[in-house]
Amino acid sequence: MKAKIHITLKAGVLDPQGKAIEGALTGLGFTGIGNVRQGKFIELEVSESDPAKARSQIEEMCQKLLANPVMENYEIEVLG
Amino acid sequence: MKAKIHITLKAGVLDPQGKAIEGALTGLGFTGIGNVRQGKFIELEVSESDPAKARSQIEEMCQKLLANPVMENYEIEVLG
Repeated sequence: MKAKIHITLKAGVLDPQGKAIEGALTGLGFTGIGNVRQGKFIELEVSESDPAKARSQIEEMCQKLLANPVMENYEIEVLG
Repeated sequence: MKAKIHITLKAGVLDPQGKAIEGALTGLGFTGIGNVRQGKFIELEVSESDPAKARSQIEEMCQKLLANPVMENYEIEVLG
């Protein structure tokens, strides 16, 4: 079973990487850019074939390793 | 106009970060995990209000700064 995970910084948490991208884009001459936020995108496959069980397994992975639950949100999408 | 960009390594390009995640998850006791690939996820706002123009502006940003077109694919989603 395939899954996609989006890990993003919580609203209000400063995103220096996003700010750096914004500054670099402005430096390249792009105008009108704002609110740049960078997150992580992880794709993986699990052998579990029950979608609910796969989701709870991936949720555990996010809690234990993939995300920092203090500063980051994660969103799990289990694909057929 | 808000947009989301997914930047992923092209198929066939070795993903050491993905391999490291896979190894760490296995080390934590998770089994049956495979094909872990890590990419980037960028959210930004552009002042351009025409969706087609916003998309072509963001496409240019990907080509010039955000992605490495030799090794990476990007996918742009312009939101209303």
